Amino acid sequence: MTRDITLLDKIYTIPKFSEMTRMIDEQPTYYKRGIELGWKIKKEEVACPRTVYFYGLGGSGIVGQLFSVVFTSYTKVPIIASNSVKIADWLGPDDLLIVVSYSGETFETLRAFNEARRKGVRVVAMTSGGSLAEMARKNGVQLIELSKGFPPRMSLPEMAGAAASMLDNIDVTINAAKALLESAEMLIEVVKESNPNSPFENNTAKKAAIHLYGSIPGVFCSGHLYVSGIRLKNQLNENAKYPCIVHEIPESMHNTLEALPYSERDKYLLFRSSNETVDITSQMRFIASTLSDVSMEVWFRGSVVYEAMASIMWSDYVSIYLAALREVDPITVARIAALRKELERSIKKT
Amino acid sequence: MTRDITLLDKIYTIPKFSEMTRMIDEQPTYYKRGIELGWKIKKEEVACPRTVYFYGLGGSGIVGQLFSVVFTSYTKVPIIASNSVKIADWLGPDDLLIVVSYSGETFETLRAFNEARRKGVRVVAMTSGGSLAEMARKNGVQLIELSKGFPPRMSLPEMAGAAASMLDNIDVTINAAKALLESAEMLIEVVKESNPNSPFENNTAKKAAIHLYGSIPGVFCSGHLYVSGIRLKNQLNENAKYPCIVHEIPESMHNTLEALPYSERDKYLLFRSSNETVDITSQMRFIASTLSDVSMEVWFRGSVVYEAMASIMWSDYVSIYLAALREVDPITVARIAALRKELERSIKKT
Repeated sequence: MTRDITLLDKIYTIPKFSEMTRMIDEQPTYYKRGIELGWKIKKEEVACPRTVYFYGLGGSGIVGQLFSVVFTSYTKVPIIASNSVKIADWLGPDDLLIVVSYSGETFETLRAFNEARRKGVRVVAMTSGGSLAEMARKNGVQLIELSKGFPPRMSLPEMAGAAASMLDNIDVTINAAKALLESAEMLIEVVKESNPNSPFENNTAKKAAIHLYGSIPGVFCSGHLYVSGIRLKNQLNENAKYPCIVHEIPESMHNTLEALPYSERDKYLLFRSSNETVDITSQMRFIASTLSDVSMEVWFRGSVVYEAMASIMWSDYVSIYLAALREVDPITVARIAALRKELERSIKKT
Repeated sequence: MTRDITLLDKIYTIPKFSEMTRMIDEQPTYYKRGIELGWKIKKEEVACPRTVYFYGLGGSGIVGQLFSVVFTSYTKVPIIASNSVKIADWLGPDDLLIVVSYSGETFETLRAFNEARRKGVRVVAMTSGGSLAEMARKNGVQLIELSKGFPPRMSLPEMAGAAASMLDNIDVTINAAKALLESAEMLIEVVKESNPNSPFENNTAKKAAIHLYGSIPGVFCSGHLYVSGIRLKNQLNENAKYPCIVHEIPESMHNTLEALPYSERDKYLLFRSSNETVDITSQMRFIASTLSDVSMEVWFRGSVVYEAMASIMWSDYVSIYLAALREVDPITVARIAALRKELERSIKKT
């Protein structure tokens, strides 16, 4: 399958694509806006927990994954991210649950909020409104109120900013907000290189979209870039209605490796990092030579936090380009919406 | 693609398949043997940690996932499983690292051991020998010595038994070993229903292998059965040299759902549980109706621990049947071995 690559230069002129693309361009601003929110949390009752436990699903869950994966050197307290059916049974009064639901209506998140309250777990709610905001106010639970009007997945930068300053604020992390802020300033480089105005020759995001178009995409990633691999998958799923399989190194080299390629339609991206250890470099090279005809390397360079943020932003651009190539609306997620309705019905019945 | 299903009745007569199949049949015994090992750990210095952190990769990593996912109601202490590049920076003297490497030679595991010692983290090593056993002895670190002679992935039952009694022993869990032991007694039912002597009509493992043969397999799973989904994937990868994609519910219903099916060759298994909550049942039904032509439901019934162990065993049988259908040797993992050699070379050079 081939597509006219000049289409990718015209994204800003097509309303259904331009709206979300501008949200990506604006990520540096959203990180900063989020940071202001987190400083407002009052330390009493939530400071110095045994563990920080993020709970959220989909677009609201990835902020927890970002902190548990990328900010491990900023904390002395375990930061755990869960997107399972329920919160862990071991959570107790010494732990802090950060319960995240952009819409404030996700069934599982509301259940997690109630369960945590029942068990005496310290709770902070992060949402743009809805039932979660109401429940938090009613129960005297501290609330981080996110800006309204985003598709949940596009709220990640604001959520991340808010989480960073909140965690600094309550003495869980040191200088997480500073690291995020410094990196946000530099993201302008990613905007310049990867947005629709940047020509194909210099634009790895456009190249990646063309590389993956018509394929079953896989991404190899490691360490702090694992969360970006997840982000790429989720954004391809939601924005481009497109599959993607995440392969983490080293884990996938102990199992997945024996089964590659999954099909004759496989295409791969390799997320490379200037912070790679020698063993990761060796494994990346091995996989690149094993899949040389169908793989493309993408390099990120800078601090661990900057690379994570840059690769998230880059992945978001790729998803918009793939949505355009596939001529699908990046905003609407019809099946997810249908399932949510179905779920509501079946829970009300019981 | 079709294959003669009578081939699956003859597994015990073909040496390269019978050897591993008998290891699956013997899982109940291995769980029990493992339990004896864990009681030998001396409590002093390792009891009552802030967190229990399992670190291991591939066949040695899944034991940690089993405990973090399945045994959440048996513990008041966070149990975290990591198969990332490195152990978390926040680990300190109050935490317990259980470092698992069946071979005792996995590079990342040896690095984790050294890093943890440097930071004063409490450590228990679990291995069948190799450099890890040596390093543990030299440093006065307690050691759980596993039976030799297994492919690493087939040591899971013994590892799980040892971890359960050890965690009970050091007051992290209550009655984990008892739950494992009771369930092990009942696994004989899975052996009877799923092993090669059980005819196709009553044998869901054989049916699943035929269902998946020639496809790109996906498995939908949730909660305690998530670890079994991972197990199925890894066993298909290693034993059958076959791909498999794991979709966790509810998370995948927030992203993956928009991209299904991944290809015209997709086939799915739905892991159903007698412990399902109403919201999981609703989502399983939704996915079953969305993918009705290509999905097969598999039910597990019993306690949470029993269902996890039964579905792991069942998944192992499916992987052997698929190896037989594909006429590949289930024991040898040539690419993984080649990568390990390559990795050793490049690390020595630095």
